[in-house]
Amino acid sequence: MEATVERIGIGMVGHGFMGKAHSQAWRTVAHAFELPLRPELVALAGRDPGRAREAADRLGWADVEPDWRALVERPDVDLVDICTPGAGHAPIALAALAAGKHVLCEKPLANTLAEAEEMVAAADRARDNGVRAMTGFNYRRVPALALAGRLVAEGRLGPVRHVRARYLQDWLTDPAAPSSWRLDASLAGSGALGDLGAHLVDLVGFLLPAHPIESVVATTATFTPERPAPGGGTAPVTVDDAAAWLARCGPVLATFEVTRCATGRRNGLQLEIDGERGSIGFDLERLNELALYETGMVPQGFRRVLVTEPDDPYISAWWPPGHTLGWEHTFIHQAADLLTAIAAGTDPAPSFADGLSVQRVLDAVARSAGDGVWVRV
Amino acid sequence: MEATVERIGIGMVGHGFMGKAHSQAWRTVAHAFELPLRPELVALAGRDPGRAREAADRLGWADVEPDWRALVERPDVDLVDICTPGAGHAPIALAALAAGKHVLCEKPLANTLAEAEEMVAAADRARDNGVRAMTGFNYRRVPALALAGRLVAEGRLGPVRHVRARYLQDWLTDPAAPSSWRLDASLAGSGALGDLGAHLVDLVGFLLPAHPIESVVATTATFTPERPAPGGGTAPVTVDDAAAWLARCGPVLATFEVTRCATGRRNGLQLEIDGERGSIGFDLERLNELALYETGMVPQGFRRVLVTEPDDPYISAWWPPGHTLGWEHTFIHQAADLLTAIAAGTDPAPSFADGLSVQRVLDAVARSAGDGVWVRV
Amino acid sequence: MEATVERIGIGMVGHGFMGKAHSQAWRTVAHAFELPLRPELVALAGRDPGRAREAADRLGWADVEPDWRALVERPDVDLVDICTPGAGHAPIALAALAAGKHVLCEKPLANTLAEAEEMVAAADRARDNGVRAMTGFNYRRVPALALAGRLVAEGRLGPVRHVRARYLQDWLTDPAAPSSWRLDASLAGSGALGDLGAHLVDLVGFLLPAHPIESVVATTATFTPERPAPGGGTAPVTVDDAAAWLARCGPVLATFEVTRCATGRRNGLQLEIDGERGSIGFDLERLNELALYETGMVPQGFRRVLVTEPDDPYISAWWPPGHTLGWEHTFIHQAADLLTAIAAGTDPAPSFADGLSVQRVLDAVARSAGDGVWVRV
Amino acid sequence: MEATVERIGIGMVGHGFMGKAHSQAWRTVAHAFELPLRPELVALAGRDPGRAREAADRLGWADVEPDWRALVERPDVDLVDICTPGAGHAPIALAALAAGKHVLCEKPLANTLAEAEEMVAAADRARDNGVRAMTGFNYRRVPALALAGRLVAEGRLGPVRHVRARYLQDWLTDPAAPSSWRLDASLAGSGALGDLGAHLVDLVGFLLPAHPIESVVATTATFTPERPAPGGGTAPVTVDDAAAWLARCGPVLATFEVTRCATGRRNGLQLEIDGERGSIGFDLERLNELALYETGMVPQGFRRVLVTEPDDPYISAWWPPGHTLGWEHTFIHQAADLLTAIAAGTDPAPSFADGLSVQRVLDAVARSAGDGVWVRV
Repeated sequence: MEATVERIGIGMVGHGFMGKAHSQAWRTVAHAFELPLRPELVALAGRDPGRAREAADRLGWADVEPDWRALVERPDVDLVDICTPGAGHAPIALAALAAGKHVLCEKPLANTLAEAEEMVAAADRARDNGVRAMTGFNYRRVPALALAGRLVAEGRLGPVRHVRARYLQDWLTDPAAPSSWRLDASLAGSGALGDLGAHLVDLVGFLLPAHPIESVVATTATFTPERPAPGGGTAPVTVDDAAAWLARCGPVLATFEVTRCATGRRNGLQLEIDGERGSIGFDLERLNELALYETGMVPQGFRRVLVTEPDDPYISAWWPPGHTLGWEHTFIHQAADLLTAIAAGTDPAPSFADGLSVQRVLDAVARSAGDGVWVRV
Repeated sequence: MEATVERIGIGMVGHGFMGKAHSQAWRTVAHAFELPLRPELVALAGRDPGRAREAADRLGWADVEPDWRALVERPDVDLVDICTPGAGHAPIALAALAAGKHVLCEKPLANTLAEAEEMVAAADRARDNGVRAMTGFNYRRVPALALAGRLVAEGRLGPVRHVRARYLQDWLTDPAAPSSWRLDASLAGSGALGDLGAHLVDLVGFLLPAHPIESVVATTATFTPERPAPGGGTAPVTVDDAAAWLARCGPVLATFEVTRCATGRRNGLQLEIDGERGSIGFDLERLNELALYETGMVPQGFRRVLVTEPDDPYISAWWPPGHTLGWEHTFIHQAADLLTAIAAGTDPAPSFADGLSVQRVLDAVARSAGDGVWVRV
Repeated sequence: MEATVERIGIGMVGHGFMGKAHSQAWRTVAHAFELPLRPELVALAGRDPGRAREAADRLGWADVEPDWRALVERPDVDLVDICTPGAGHAPIALAALAAGKHVLCEKPLANTLAEAEEMVAAADRARDNGVRAMTGFNYRRVPALALAGRLVAEGRLGPVRHVRARYLQDWLTDPAAPSSWRLDASLAGSGALGDLGAHLVDLVGFLLPAHPIESVVATTATFTPERPAPGGGTAPVTVDDAAAWLARCGPVLATFEVTRCATGRRNGLQLEIDGERGSIGFDLERLNELALYETGMVPQGFRRVLVTEPDDPYISAWWPPGHTLGWEHTFIHQAADLLTAIAAGTDPAPSFADGLSVQRVLDAVARSAGDGVWVRV
Repeated sequence: MEATVERIGIGMVGHGFMGKAHSQAWRTVAHAFELPLRPELVALAGRDPGRAREAADRLGWADVEPDWRALVERPDVDLVDICTPGAGHAPIALAALAAGKHVLCEKPLANTLAEAEEMVAAADRARDNGVRAMTGFNYRRVPALALAGRLVAEGRLGPVRHVRARYLQDWLTDPAAPSSWRLDASLAGSGALGDLGAHLVDLVGFLLPAHPIESVVATTATFTPERPAPGGGTAPVTVDDAAAWLARCGPVLATFEVTRCATGRRNGLQLEIDGERGSIGFDLERLNELALYETGMVPQGFRRVLVTEPDDPYISAWWPPGHTLGWEHTFIHQAADLLTAIAAGTDPAPSFADGLSVQRVLDAVARSAGDGVWVRV
């Protein structure tokens, strides 16, 4: 006798870079994973009807809604996937939860702490009705990082001493690169700090749940204070190009750096964790690999683990050993985990509360950079 | 005014490892690439109706056919995708071409030279009716290798001196690994030679079209002459575990090695080409990267090219720089190129004739290994 | 007509790890480099006459002196090389300079700022008499780092944005590793901060002379507060195991980390510098290599420069391309540069003043770690 | 009570590249290793008295002899170190052995098999009088390769399946590179085959003593058949630029390639050995590292062993972990091993017979390349 597979209707708001990645996840997830729910790409919401229609056709959505409010209320939509800029996260998520719809919300959870707190409260209320909410920190679903989490949890590294977390990009290296809404603090909130820092803070929390960040001291830099405006002339850059901070997490000494000006690093999310009995290293530009060192081996050395074995996280859904995955697979894994949690009636991780925790750390970093003192989270 | 996108009905024969990869390609290709044809996954053929039904549901095919002959004749099928073991390639391809259906046939083209020659003749006849045939050497569609081909064609390496081609796997390292049809010469034809060697020979031909392999001298090895049979007892291994050969390609000196016993190499397709003015290096385990050396730089050095820029082959369909692709993308790119050629009325590459050329080289290698002499291709 | 090569008598104080490395440098330098001065290993000073005698025989010194004061006064000694623990640096250097002897003093220059300032004043006075003083920051003489300095000076990286400096070791990872004088603040001054941090600060100053460190905010950690005492029982650890700091250097954002608890990193002095037009990377565990990225190349990528070409710094004294050097060569290069400067009547670099600058930065780091605020250097 | 250290007088013939490296070894070895014999650099022989004098001064030799025959007869010379081109090896070695002097002879042992056989016979006779003879295959003394030998001998890799041996250089990549005696078969014997191939064959024999090479099939290439002559005009190139061969060594399948035209590879001696339970990899351009894979680890992966631990071969003479060695250290280790064997009255390895074995393999390779058939060694 076979398990019944029910449909779950998905509605997505936004159809930019993230919307494209999420669409591929929804289209693919049920073909790779055995799931109790099969997603149906019901409708896409976007303000410009023509562009939304074009996007829906291209990305595989059956219908479009010009207004996300209508999408949220559709009876054939069971889950709302929020892929808009940060300012839209709170209103859409609150409406969707109020309508009894599960929510997947892209990171960062919200542009302000107050919004994020309201979203957590709404998610807590919705949970009582079996409604689930998840924050979209997709990098937890890189198999190598999920394996890293498993190794840390098993104590393979021993007590942890050091964390080195960097997210290095280079698309603002050139001072002639034009301005955009992303460089305007009133729209984007912050620069590299919120965009890249959010991933780092979430990952460190995911990998070291026993050692939350307690206090930070930070600095930020804006190397190019004004840039060519798309319409001519120049526009001031009011967000950070880069940020760096030191953090104390109980006994762990952690350093963080995020930047959009690390020439030559296209997408260098780099993590190192050193423990008493072992160390790990990771670089998103080689996302199928994990570096692992364990004391007590003779001869000793970091080993390059190609994380494509059947027992590695998420791999059983895919290909034989040595057949590597790409960046987009993280979204497919995220969708699989969310659907599994919904069907099981359990809370998916990272929750909205996890998203709020990240916001609190970033807020402390921003305050420390402004005031020049250590700030408790 | 928009270009019209017509549907093209796909029928697939076989639903194993390759069938799964091809299915994902057909489902995804029109969402990533702008194409004049939109594939429709019409039907899957498989001998066991129950298993075929299950596979069709899982892989996204609308219908099943228990007999590939019926599939080939369906009016709603325009293209037949052959993912069966090698013995099935010739009969299915011949029938499909005779029925006026385009064909994509997995590598190697056929189990015998005679079959392959018949297939090429059939493809030549079908071409006159606008019917297209392609051999599925997917690794030509790794962006880094396509970029390598572009660099060689532009003369960036200068006259070529050396080729080093290896395909190293390790799944037969353990003598206790069980036997299977793949280790029975009467079913599989050969071992690592045909399976892995076909990829190498095709790639070298793709990268160096001006220097076809002219003669070879070879040796093969079967390290474990009998293995546990699945049903108990042991079974003789009648194919090679490994093969190595030297080749002369005009002025180019090439070395080849394929093995299933290179402990620690899960999927190590490694290529190096040295020219008078530059060299390249590639390893499938890091498929987003190409190593490139060019003389005349100060300071000199091999550079690690992360092949994810918008101008790199196939990348414009995907993500921003630094967001890497996986193994399965090669099949999506293959599907895109095939559909583009069909719509344009041009011949896709690699053609059946290209597949036959590869077979001729492998045949020469096998003969040389048997006779211990140089063999002309 | 040939240049005359005069002898220069060397006297060395101390014969531990550093004394062994310096001895090899003095024995070898004139055989590798064409120099106007040929060093003669006149005498070694060490407190224990028997051990000093044994060391002199082993390391190639003609004579021994039980008291460094006698060594400094010997008429056949022209240059005093100080390889003692930090507490000895100031008295020996002051006496040697007063006696008109050139001085090479191991890093860090002194245990206190006051001592270092006195040494600088003495070096300034001695310079008027043609006497030279050098601080032994040997890593400036790694060919790859000297090449890095050349590239930065030529503007190949453009305006610099980021520095990432780490010196990662792991010999205190194990909490059972025994205590020693190095872990006693009253003898060693500090832990990783002074020992490893001094190298990083000197190197960053060497590579970016236009951007001195202006202010820092720091934290330190002692993961294992007491350790087995060599004589039994336990001893408190009163120095840092690790330190991390952020630094502002004009427009440049720099991060520093030093630790003796980075499991798996034996001697990982790692430097990255990102500029508007290029970036470099270096790891002392692969000291013959420099990573270099330059914008504007197609295709782009970090190149791995093997720094063994005839035009690379120091290489003309050695072997053909591809024949690599080791750690100890840095001391030979240092000796060559010092002898060249003495013969030319110019000041060697790094000077005592450079050594003092490093001390000032480390002092600021220590104060910031204590007070929790940004400290100006 | 201390062991007595006696002197041993060294006489060296030749003072080119190899002479420089050997001189540094003789000057340094007793300062690094505790040895029962202390080498004294007695005299250097070179045909041109002026150049020999200059070289002796620069390289640290006390005296010069214009004729190697006189050097060989000097009573204060106990060991003759032969660093001449290959044609000089046999006459000098025979004379030295006849005079009762120990001999270290650079590789390859001789230009012809007949000479090499005569040298082995002479070494056998001399052994009876306590006289020792060694062939200078220095790469056996790379710590990483010595460690590799230890691991293979301990069975850590299990039964061996594959060897991949390459020695890739690039100094003849440019067709405008001038001719020299090295490219004249009448003087040099062969090209890359003898020069680079000798190292590979010796190393594979050293690492896999149980599996000598039994038969080979080979090809060679001369990409640039004539080159600018130093005196003007052009000169024919009568040696190989590159060679490649397949070899059967009992159950082991080995592939070899040597070339001077691998653009970008300055000194790429690369070795891989795959066994049933593990694999190793090595590249001379990173000579402090060994890649090691062992089955049965979870998670699995190649580890990068930094071969600088106290227990690693030769390392106890040098520096703490993580302080790397260079190319020239191999000669120091070779000298230490030779002196130790002489003092102990045992045979050093590789012996002249080992050198002859290598010649036999290279001879078989050359014959196979000429005849196009498999040749038994």
